[in-house]
Amino acid sequence: MIVEFCVLFGGVSFEHEISIVSAIALKGVLKDRIKYFLFLDENHHFYLIEESNMHSKYFAQIKEKKLPPLILTHNGLLKNSFLGAKIIELPLVINLVHGGDGEDGKLASLLEFYRIAFIGPRIEASVLSYNKYLTKLYAKDLGVKTLDYVLLNEKNRANALDLIEFNFPFIVKPSNAGSSLGVNVVKEEKELIYALDSAFEYSKEVLIEPFIQGVKEYNLAGCKIKKDFCFSYVEEPSKQEFLDFKQKYLDFSRNKAPKANLSNALEEQLKENFKKLYNDLFSGAIIRCDFFVIENEVYLNEINPIPGSLANYLFDDFKTTLENLAQSLPKTPKIQIKNSYLLQIQKNK
Amino acid sequence: MIVEFCVLFGGVSFEHEISIVSAIALKGVLKDRIKYFLFLDENHHFYLIEESNMHSKYFAQIKEKKLPPLILTHNGLLKNSFLGAKIIELPLVINLVHGGDGEDGKLASLLEFYRIAFIGPRIEASVLSYNKYLTKLYAKDLGVKTLDYVLLNEKNRANALDLIEFNFPFIVKPSNAGSSLGVNVVKEEKELIYALDSAFEYSKEVLIEPFIQGVKEYNLAGCKIKKDFCFSYVEEPSKQEFLDFKQKYLDFSRNKAPKANLSNALEEQLKENFKKLYNDLFSGAIIRCDFFVIENEVYLNEINPIPGSLANYLFDDFKTTLENLAQSLPKTPKIQIKNSYLLQIQKNK
Repeated sequence: MIVEFCVLFGGVSFEHEISIVSAIALKGVLKDRIKYFLFLDENHHFYLIEESNMHSKYFAQIKEKKLPPLILTHNGLLKNSFLGAKIIELPLVINLVHGGDGEDGKLASLLEFYRIAFIGPRIEASVLSYNKYLTKLYAKDLGVKTLDYVLLNEKNRANALDLIEFNFPFIVKPSNAGSSLGVNVVKEEKELIYALDSAFEYSKEVLIEPFIQGVKEYNLAGCKIKKDFCFSYVEEPSKQEFLDFKQKYLDFSRNKAPKANLSNALEEQLKENFKKLYNDLFSGAIIRCDFFVIENEVYLNEINPIPGSLANYLFDDFKTTLENLAQSLPKTPKIQIKNSYLLQIQKNK
Repeated sequence: MIVEFCVLFGGVSFEHEISIVSAIALKGVLKDRIKYFLFLDENHHFYLIEESNMHSKYFAQIKEKKLPPLILTHNGLLKNSFLGAKIIELPLVINLVHGGDGEDGKLASLLEFYRIAFIGPRIEASVLSYNKYLTKLYAKDLGVKTLDYVLLNEKNRANALDLIEFNFPFIVKPSNAGSSLGVNVVKEEKELIYALDSAFEYSKEVLIEPFIQGVKEYNLAGCKIKKDFCFSYVEEPSKQEFLDFKQKYLDFSRNKAPKANLSNALEEQLKENFKKLYNDLFSGAIIRCDFFVIENEVYLNEINPIPGSLANYLFDDFKTTLENLAQSLPKTPKIQIKNSYLLQIQKNK
């Protein structure tokens, strides 16, 4: 069965530009299966972008463009013109808005509210993965290990050093931001203030964790289709201390990522941890779980519920995976609205 | 300063009717301060309701009414008519949609997305309080006690008895539903199947907790205004095993709830627990925390992020509380969208 898609990208997020690049990359992968490119700008207006304009040059200058703004509503987009209002029906939406709007639950809410089918994390899944502190609570309760941490806010940040029970070096990261933005390694006390300032620029809460030099890192993407998991191969991300924003994305259009060299047993362990985390909270989404392996134990680093260009480069047959997932989206249970209670009040009057 | 409100109510939720009654109750309390009553129907259409129609009889028969549907968009409501599109600007919205839509993060998302100011829980606060399992994880991490529990889903429900490590009687409740819907006390094994069926009707996950006959219950509502907490008095809800749906709401328009008779020390303990839970996740909302006291220890039962008629009957001066809260709403940080990364890609080409 041929599935058509609408790729939703942009958003009010520190990763706005990443999302544009992500959408351009998916254009190359999904080609004629994409019926619409739907762009969300910095003012939360939606615009349809011509396929021929889906290149970085166009978006580098988009503020100059005059496009007709559209309103997301039931089943699609409302276009108001001199000729009256018209609905542009949307095919299956791929939520490709990284960071704010896309991963914090807002777009999931809008799409669910207007009953527009989409691939991407639902509201709860968004909230639990977007906030790295909540991810830890969730993972821990499932029996998935995470690193020790200290959670800071504006009130306790001055006491950071008293709260930390592990040794230098630390890694300091915003609790709510993806793509290594605002992330810094702190090797000694004097570097802490800058790292905190930098992280607090992106988030009201900041996490500090031990930084383990040379730790083994493995990324695994996947989704659940009906009752089975469909996994990507395991990637061992290249690194230089850690991937900063530029390192991570200037090679974004890479075709294939380096395949990790790991034992079957370890790969199985990664998959078991992935399944625990995915099931069933992330139904409808292709996610990437980034793991550490320390002394043969698997630790979750983070869950990326909308990985860059959906981590398509990690899948042997991405298009088929996406099409199968499209047939296996979670359904919102129908709630029957009654008025029996109101009628009873009437009767009691 | 005089603040005008828009009361948003209804919603696709098992508590749809409760929300209508809640809005009617607030009409009596806030009177001429309410500029609009905004009703969300079972199809997710918005309608403005005339104040004179804000009574139960009107809503008991609303399906017969012909109202013009409105679309929520930037700053307000879009009304399409023969004369073209028009925006009805909204004053400060009070989110009074209980249960689904209102408390699961959807309406918080829509309002934040369209930058419409509102009183009510934000997205993360909604998700953490709407899902009672997540509330437990959150509370536990803050050092607030909750009762033991077992979390069931369709897969492990058959093994419920093997998973439970406490004795009869149990209380069985949907993980995602308010107002005692689908909640049952189970005194012996044979009652379990019915209780599970009943709870799974409302939610994909079900919690089982020990049921403590005659446990002391105390409800405390409040909000944070600037740096200070504003608390209601403590209510000791009347009970008959536990309040079922009808008991809880057929006396909904009650003027004053029974004030609890408790020591200052215990009241202080309840407030300390409330502060931990509220701070700062629930900024912008008036919430009610329902506590148990067992052997002088405080346990959180649940957080109600949009209590019935905002628990106005528990406050000495509800109108002033609401007006002060209106001046102390959380601000969404402005994110500057840049195109430096896109320009760099251009440059590298």
